Amino acid sequence: MQNRKIVVIGGVAAGPKAASRARRIDQNADITIIEREEILSYSGCGLPYWISGVVKEKKELTSTAAGTQRDPIYFAKVKNIRALNRTEAVEIDRNRRSVLCRRLETGEILNFPYDNLIIATGSIPVDIKIPGSDLKNVTHLKNLQEAANIREALASCSKVAIIGGGFIGCEMAEAICECAKQATIVEMMPHLLPGLLDEDMALLLEKSMREQGVVIHTNTKVVRLDGNEEGQVQKIVTHNGIEIDTEFVLLAVGVRPVVDLAKKAGIAIGNSGGIKVDSHMQTSDPEIYAAGDCVEHFMPLLGEHTLSAMGSIANKEGRVAGTNAAGGDIAFRGIVGTNVLKVFGTNVGRTGLTNAGAIARGMKTVTAVVASSDRAHYYPGSSSVILKAVVEAGSRRLVGLQGIGTGEVAKRIDVGATAITGQMTIDEVADLDLSYAPPYSPAMDPLITLANMARNKLDGLLDGISVTEVKKRIDSGDDLILLDVRDPAEFESMRLPGSDLIPLSDLRGRISELPKNREIVIICRAGLRAYEAARILKGEGYNNVKVMEGGVLAWPYPLEMG
Amino acid sequence: MQNRKIVVIGGVAAGPKAASRARRIDQNADITIIEREEILSYSGCGLPYWISGVVKEKKELTSTAAGTQRDPIYFAKVKNIRALNRTEAVEIDRNRRSVLCRRLETGEILNFPYDNLIIATGSIPVDIKIPGSDLKNVTHLKNLQEAANIREALASCSKVAIIGGGFIGCEMAEAICECAKQATIVEMMPHLLPGLLDEDMALLLEKSMREQGVVIHTNTKVVRLDGNEEGQVQKIVTHNGIEIDTEFVLLAVGVRPVVDLAKKAGIAIGNSGGIKVDSHMQTSDPEIYAAGDCVEHFMPLLGEHTLSAMGSIANKEGRVAGTNAAGGDIAFRGIVGTNVLKVFGTNVGRTGLTNAGAIARGMKTVTAVVASSDRAHYYPGSSSVILKAVVEAGSRRLVGLQGIGTGEVAKRIDVGATAITGQMTIDEVADLDLSYAPPYSPAMDPLITLANMARNKLDGLLDGISVTEVKKRIDSGDDLILLDVRDPAEFESMRLPGSDLIPLSDLRGRISELPKNREIVIICRAGLRAYEAARILKGEGYNNVKVMEGGVLAWPYPLEMG
Repeated sequence: MQNRKIVVIGGVAAGPKAASRARRIDQNADITIIEREEILSYSGCGLPYWISGVVKEKKELTSTAAGTQRDPIYFAKVKNIRALNRTEAVEIDRNRRSVLCRRLETGEILNFPYDNLIIATGSIPVDIKIPGSDLKNVTHLKNLQEAANIREALASCSKVAIIGGGFIGCEMAEAICECAKQATIVEMMPHLLPGLLDEDMALLLEKSMREQGVVIHTNTKVVRLDGNEEGQVQKIVTHNGIEIDTEFVLLAVGVRPVVDLAKKAGIAIGNSGGIKVDSHMQTSDPEIYAAGDCVEHFMPLLGEHTLSAMGSIANKEGRVAGTNAAGGDIAFRGIVGTNVLKVFGTNVGRTGLTNAGAIARGMKTVTAVVASSDRAHYYPGSSSVILKAVVEAGSRRLVGLQGIGTGEVAKRIDVGATAITGQMTIDEVADLDLSYAPPYSPAMDPLITLANMARNKLDGLLDGISVTEVKKRIDSGDDLILLDVRDPAEFESMRLPGSDLIPLSDLRGRISELPKNREIVIICRAGLRAYEAARILKGEGYNNVKVMEGGVLAWPYPLEMG
Repeated sequence: MQNRKIVVIGGVAAGPKAASRARRIDQNADITIIEREEILSYSGCGLPYWISGVVKEKKELTSTAAGTQRDPIYFAKVKNIRALNRTEAVEIDRNRRSVLCRRLETGEILNFPYDNLIIATGSIPVDIKIPGSDLKNVTHLKNLQEAANIREALASCSKVAIIGGGFIGCEMAEAICECAKQATIVEMMPHLLPGLLDEDMALLLEKSMREQGVVIHTNTKVVRLDGNEEGQVQKIVTHNGIEIDTEFVLLAVGVRPVVDLAKKAGIAIGNSGGIKVDSHMQTSDPEIYAAGDCVEHFMPLLGEHTLSAMGSIANKEGRVAGTNAAGGDIAFRGIVGTNVLKVFGTNVGRTGLTNAGAIARGMKTVTAVVASSDRAHYYPGSSSVILKAVVEAGSRRLVGLQGIGTGEVAKRIDVGATAITGQMTIDEVADLDLSYAPPYSPAMDPLITLANMARNKLDGLLDGISVTEVKKRIDSGDDLILLDVRDPAEFESMRLPGSDLIPLSDLRGRISELPKNREIVIICRAGLRAYEAARILKGEGYNNVKVMEGGVLAWPYPLEMG
């Protein structure tokens, strides 16, 4: 029998993973990776950190953990894989089962027959078609070469604008500030990380980024870029007439899967625009697999396929594609939709559905928000995290979790992702035996406290109101009593405009000061004392009482100080 | 209808939690907490950090996150709960449904009738009956008062011995070193954290603690403590004749549930020695609930009840007991058995069953060990974690996870605890959509890599051998080829005694140097390259090839250097 021929198109993340795994399954296979760019198998997610200088050397992004460069020689010697860089896959000939390629430097045409083909063509930044997007110093963060260009250009700029406030936009804003430049984000949607965070959580991120000096315009559409006489970008002009001076513009409005080659070969493309694959990462052609950013991923929570450009998913799918292409038989169970982001000292994470997303899909939800210390409050370095749970009301299942804070967020997000995968109810989450010691968590982990808060709401023990709702109600002049139940010193240092103080310890004695016929919103630092106060008021026959969830810590709007 | 009377015996962790929750459920209940000690509702788990000075003020351990002292006045004013400190519960009279108490300062006898009673009497250190255990400067870490005594005594000692190498023993060793004292641990069992870690992982902890200057004697039984003329402890004498000079001895051989009062009242005690409770935390007397260290907890993984003295469990159970005692109806699902520990810069965690524990219960298991960076290897601060999975062979279910390293361990342990709770297979764990960004994890989270390693073993792609097994085989003079496949520079800097080098990149070319008729153990830094090498050798017909799991990073024994 002849050796199995496996061809992999794409040399970053899913591609090399699939090829390496195929080699481990079949030592005799003939394996080829075809990659358009010079450098393969680098960490695309590390680019913002190389641009900022947090990662010192470019080669760190292209080396293994042991320090070996993953170049064609490495693939040849260590993996016995033929890795062709600067080589473009031009056409997939499914009848002849071969891939036609062109070496970009020589123009040479090569033809690689395959028994199994793996498409891992990844994603590219979405282009926005606006006047001026072809000016000099307007670019995307597309690859390592483009990152090098950005690094170089940044050296001679002082003002940088980013169009798009998604993950890459936010990471790049940090990178630009790290280089001591002024960063401005312009986002068309009402808040940062649209679709990924709910408004209340996104506003907290916005607040923390503004505190670091980032200028943020949300609800703002860019209509034009203006240049100077040398054809260099000089100004962003927005739909509402704002003009933003800039010397460099990064377009970061999202990425889209690269599917041209697959499409041309007649391979089925899904509604989301990614290559259609089954759980074995098999495309509509059973001899062809696909993995990574170029496919649409299955999301069991929704029973739908969706796009997500994540190195973590690409690696998992690459392993599955590589296994099956080499004669194995494994399936990939799909994704939950987990992302995490560091912006300056703030950790942001999310998994599953946002509340807005769940509601848009017709789901009836209950949400809960709490602020908490990430470890025992007395342990040095203890920092705050604000968590939000989205729970399906009927089934009580956790369907989404978001977190933000200077404290440990990613841990809680990972537990949330695991709980969602396990289809756990919020009651099961509340009972999770999470690790406890003072350097790592309070006795009640923030996630447990959050789950209990959600249960209290589901069980009718607690009526909550979100900070965004409170703000809307205040702004529309509604008749609300904003009752702060913290200690006087806390209240003095900062408070919601228009709020009144009755410390929790005085509440039972002073309860008659509160009218029963008006709506009362109770406020504390993190949400727990307000809950305690609400229970007292309920016990005394106050029936229009709400707890502002997450307390002052979760309030993203201006506070009165001092 | 009369107000419901709820009496809670015990004022730390489970007790105050139950009382506070009962208050939130029923604003009219008459609620009393009875506590023997002066100070109630403090963080027992914080004591080592107060002794070491990491936590500066004692009051930080007794205050809420908002800084309020949780004293009887706080309970009265904020919670409308009568909290009696320095008050001993003398007898539970189940016929009259009342608790007889004595105020310790006045001798006054009080009687508290109850509709529902909650027993939260906690645990106390196990006494070891050896000659000399009544000498001066021999003590337990029993409570806040005893911690104060230890703090004071430490000021005038330079050498401190700890009998018992469990969690408290290890935490206290760090605390003592933080005070610039010499710490010695004497542990009767073969390794630290017996029952909680497998030997391979415990030896790594031992190694890291020795590097910090802690002297550790395992397999060593203390037979006698000798004192000086003033009756102060001076020396520990062990079964094998070792004499350890010391000025202070901390007995930390474990804790046992305090159940005397319950037992005397005829309440059922379980085989483990804790109070028997059902999922509602109800004892054999339906009017009496119990929660926290004094009960035996349900462990669904084993279908058994077990003891565990954890503030996290106590709080969860207290909430359940308080809810039900106040007329609510909720159940507690039980524990997985999760612990985490910080010793100097090393993080140690475990959840579920150890391999030794699983085997002792007749389970057929497969284990996997990997070493990995906790975040992208190029991201500053990236540190190593070594994880071990215990998988039930037939069902492929994850039943245990252990971790150790200077990197982020607790996050992976929490995910493991959640996965075990969700009865996930190792295949499901491998597909978990864990959060990825370079500051938080590599593209393949260490837990995902671990799960894949376990799958490879289950699927026959990989024969592993543990570091302890390799050591035993070397020590017994077995004919083994120890083949190191790292780069020459890595090999030069440190290696296993007796190992030979063929770098992975040369292996295909030099394969004929290796005989087919001898057993080959392949070694690399973390285990991944060795796996790659093993696949190459298998492909060439080498059938007696094993991968040393976790590589040099997981090797707890001396290495040859330079």
